[in-house]
Amino acid sequence: MIRIAIDCMGGDHGLPVTIPAALNFRDHHPDVHLLLVGLQDQIEAQLASARSALGRDRLEIVAATEVVAMDDPVEVALRRKKDSSMRVAATLVKDGRADACISAGNTGAWMAISRYVLKTLDGIDRPAISTALPNQKGGVTYMLDLGANVDCTAQHLLQFAIMGTAMVAAIEQRQKPTVGLLNIGEEVIKGNDIVKQAAELLRASPLNFTGNVEGNDIYTGVVDVVVCDGFVGNVVLKASEGLAKMLGSFIKEEFKRSPLTLLMGAVAKPVLGRFRNRVDHRRYNGAALLGLRGVVIKSHGSADAYAFECALKRARGAVANDMLSLTTQVVAQINQSLQTPAESTLTRVDAGANAQSSHGDRQ
Amino acid sequence: MIRIAIDCMGGDHGLPVTIPAALNFRDHHPDVHLLLVGLQDQIEAQLASARSALGRDRLEIVAATEVVAMDDPVEVALRRKKDSSMRVAATLVKDGRADACISAGNTGAWMAISRYVLKTLDGIDRPAISTALPNQKGGVTYMLDLGANVDCTAQHLLQFAIMGTAMVAAIEQRQKPTVGLLNIGEEVIKGNDIVKQAAELLRASPLNFTGNVEGNDIYTGVVDVVVCDGFVGNVVLKASEGLAKMLGSFIKEEFKRSPLTLLMGAVAKPVLGRFRNRVDHRRYNGAALLGLRGVVIKSHGSADAYAFECALKRARGAVANDMLSLTTQVVAQINQSLQTPAESTLTRVDAGANAQSSHGDRQ
Repeated sequence: MIRIAIDCMGGDHGLPVTIPAALNFRDHHPDVHLLLVGLQDQIEAQLASARSALGRDRLEIVAATEVVAMDDPVEVALRRKKDSSMRVAATLVKDGRADACISAGNTGAWMAISRYVLKTLDGIDRPAISTALPNQKGGVTYMLDLGANVDCTAQHLLQFAIMGTAMVAAIEQRQKPTVGLLNIGEEVIKGNDIVKQAAELLRASPLNFTGNVEGNDIYTGVVDVVVCDGFVGNVVLKASEGLAKMLGSFIKEEFKRSPLTLLMGAVAKPVLGRFRNRVDHRRYNGAALLGLRGVVIKSHGSADAYAFECALKRARGAVANDMLSLTTQVVAQINQSLQTPAESTLTRVDAGANAQSSHGDRQ
Repeated sequence: MIRIAIDCMGGDHGLPVTIPAALNFRDHHPDVHLLLVGLQDQIEAQLASARSALGRDRLEIVAATEVVAMDDPVEVALRRKKDSSMRVAATLVKDGRADACISAGNTGAWMAISRYVLKTLDGIDRPAISTALPNQKGGVTYMLDLGANVDCTAQHLLQFAIMGTAMVAAIEQRQKPTVGLLNIGEEVIKGNDIVKQAAELLRASPLNFTGNVEGNDIYTGVVDVVVCDGFVGNVVLKASEGLAKMLGSFIKEEFKRSPLTLLMGAVAKPVLGRFRNRVDHRRYNGAALLGLRGVVIKSHGSADAYAFECALKRARGAVANDMLSLTTQVVAQINQSLQTPAESTLTRVDAGANAQSSHGDRQ
């Protein structure tokens, strides 16, 4: 049974989104057990108004008496609301009562709380938010950080590259995932000082660093992992969502111009529907907070029930794929090779993601 | 006659793109006179191989003996290549022989050279690259900076806001254009230190600052001007181009799935074509380098002849609309009100873009 702790209070909409999503998700996944965290009365009320044949099966309410507001400063969320639904959800993971936790609430607070409660992996200073974006090759590109860290050093960017590599190695079972550094040009001379320093660190590392990539490369799929600071990543992600939405509405507009184009639209409807579904950004909802000693998922604050359910699926998938222990292993491996002479590190990384035994041999 | 100096050597493709674009542009615009700047022999050869009924009409070759390479460091372009086609093109504007200049070459070099040759307006430290992006409301959103400045202070962001406001006031004849600051959340507490400081400067300024905007707001059209540093702006712009391209190819793929969907595609073709044309990023090619004492246009390096011609149209439009003197006026006005007590500045800015006379009265 996969146990997921849900902060039911978070997000722009809170319970009217999280509870219906949780119920639907539970109904369709017989292997999950959900811990609904939040204000008990309100959760009860929402559950009472919802319909599901399965009743309270594989559902459990875990009471929390406080709620982190979307505009609470991190310090308030962390220091003054010690019984918040976020804090309780993360603690359930720490105590082993849940395998993963999820919130659609205030990103900064969710990051700070999960980091405080669960701690980061050895060699990782700050967790990073990562998600998989569809690319032109029909695969996905992992991008991080997407908003957890707004002021990054070169060392942080290197750590993001390590975490991204570890995640792709773990989830996609790829031996040496390629890493690109997001920049304003492919040439080495481009970019600000931090990005230039990060490129040097990456070149000296055992990671499969292919160099700078530009904004369009996120979608061409030239690399497996795109690394950037959280400010840039967040803006790019949201701009992409905004653009996709706008293009969708442009298509609709064009088909609505005249009776004739409406007819053409009716003919093409099945194809357009498949296209719309394929690019629906709600399907990509649910980003992982990497670098923590536990599976922590962040849903978009504005998620509707469908999007929140997609994020729940992602939490389930991370647990089912054993993402945490695989990622932890690979991070430890890379960090260790960073501390050994260059020749041996290269051999070691060639051995790749699941070379845990050879890693042991060398100690 | 509108005289445009073209750096024919710049861009990923150089002459095979710039010359055919220039000829076609000239053929369709009887009010333009083009100065083709670059290696004389090569321009002659390219002209000889091109076909146009108008021959050398309204065309003039201006020889330059050097070419700035796409990967030349700024110092090399500026100090060691004093007879580059970029430098000669900018000097034609400075000497009053051309009304505008354009290059598809190395962005950093083009910015440094045009700044060195033409100088910035009073109160503006650095030029910024700005372009108009289509938005969901059917209008356009001006965004800057798009890559001229990778390390910005809060003061620079304020200057970008001033330049953007001036440009929209001038080109769109809008009295008090709204300005948004690109950030990772709408809340005041969000973002890095520079963005927070910039927000304070903007709030204290006479500009019509509406607060933080997020990535998706670039396309929703909630503000007229979106301000960001050049690193973020460049990455967002290129990511948007990459995404639009990918979505276009996804539509094609969906219609190619089976004979039936191919048929549906054939029926819907006129509408899809109009949609494709509407979102073709080549149509938006040609960004203005604002804040200089001359009209300077930057084309995308990878532009094809169609895209480069769009950028030429933008240069012509800027001159025809008297963008330079209008922008210069508004920048001077705003800068002056920044130096006067708050009450009077507000009245003055209410008077808006073309309040040149009242501006005079107050002195």
